[in-house]
Amino acid sequence: MTTSNTPFSDAERRGLYRAIHERRDVRSQFLPDPISSAVLARLLQAAHHAPSVGFMQPWDFVVIESREVRASVLALFEEENQKAAERFEGERQERYRSLKLQGILESPLNLCITCDRSRGGPHVLGRNSILETDLFSTCLAVQNLWLAARAEGIGMGWVSIIDQAQLSAALNLPEHIYPLAYLCLGYVSEFLDQPELEAKGWRSRLPLDELVHQDTWGQALDNGPLKAAISDRE
Amino acid sequence: MTTSNTPFSDAERRGLYRAIHERRDVRSQFLPDPISSAVLARLLQAAHHAPSVGFMQPWDFVVIESREVRASVLALFEEENQKAAERFEGERQERYRSLKLQGILESPLNLCITCDRSRGGPHVLGRNSILETDLFSTCLAVQNLWLAARAEGIGMGWVSIIDQAQLSAALNLPEHIYPLAYLCLGYVSEFLDQPELEAKGWRSRLPLDELVHQDTWGQALDNGPLKAAISDRE
Repeated sequence: MTTSNTPFSDAERRGLYRAIHERRDVRSQFLPDPISSAVLARLLQAAHHAPSVGFMQPWDFVVIESREVRASVLALFEEENQKAAERFEGERQERYRSLKLQGILESPLNLCITCDRSRGGPHVLGRNSILETDLFSTCLAVQNLWLAARAEGIGMGWVSIIDQAQLSAALNLPEHIYPLAYLCLGYVSEFLDQPELEAKGWRSRLPLDELVHQDTWGQALDNGPLKAAISDRE
Repeated sequence: MTTSNTPFSDAERRGLYRAIHERRDVRSQFLPDPISSAVLARLLQAAHHAPSVGFMQPWDFVVIESREVRASVLALFEEENQKAAERFEGERQERYRSLKLQGILESPLNLCITCDRSRGGPHVLGRNSILETDLFSTCLAVQNLWLAARAEGIGMGWVSIIDQAQLSAALNLPEHIYPLAYLCLGYVSEFLDQPELEAKGWRSRLPLDELVHQDTWGQALDNGPLKAAISDRE
């Protein structure tokens, strides 16, 4: 029997790294095929097993199938996206407008992962210094779900161009519930080799070796083999 | 050759789910064995391949081996932890004080993952509505690293009981750099079967089926098979 102290096999470890490196923020490749309840349950369990400060588990999951609710969220996106486009100028604005940034109606399932800012009462273990640790914990749940989806062959996109107060109203959220992530999920025609913003020349991947510091900020790595290893793999 | 569109094998998918379900927030089981440069490079690459809004990649990584820097961070923890303990009363305070909440010196490696709040300039694609999306993106990098560490047999703990301004000073961070996560990493004597706070009776895991809503907040799931599937797996 595999216990939690059995080392990962090569294939198991490869699976984890594949999910990490082949995950994409999907907006355009969604297929209409439904996600089965068994698969969706595995994704939700994956999110629910994220770490959380003081084990507060501040998340809830709003599973959105209703076309009416999704259409109202799409309208909110379009309003914000229009404002966003106007912040760029000239050629950059044209390029911005040519990007597809959501798959709210094409994906068969939307999911809002929320954060209950009051869960666990006023004194949550580990949350005394940094109040935002509840939001941060909820992000970890989002990433668990994103990776689990990838391993199941399901693409996911995070719609961040949306006014959170309007989104809360559209989903009837109580005041203490923050709609952290609005997600679109579905099987896909393909997973792209590169992030879409990279492939389309919007931004490039930064060289990792320029982002690693030794002991304190701005000190170059004094570890030669590490420096070589992080430059190699770019 | 495995391309990114080859479905995951059973073992690969199992590896992803094992990492998610067998990951722990480690404070007490660290071994002193060093982490090789090759393994550390894989962990940093995993973090660097997290999703980020507008592909802004706001993270940096401060690899902390210096015992002096770690001792100064431990002192910051102890100061905050003393204050935190005083927020609990009676038996709960005693129980709080009995918990070990960091492994700063026992672990062979500390790592601070920071967020550059100015990276990508004032108009980052996807960040117009929610300014905190840079912090949220950095959290996704933390979770990638946490899961990759687990697959490598390495435990990790997140030290959140720390004053961020004091931590910034200890690490010489510039003003626009936020120290999002202070992490302790190392091989472990064992991974516990349950989260430590659960095993010690501090808090229980919430039943997932009480956290899932249909279409809008507070509406019960109308999907019977999904309801059964998320209750089953508890």
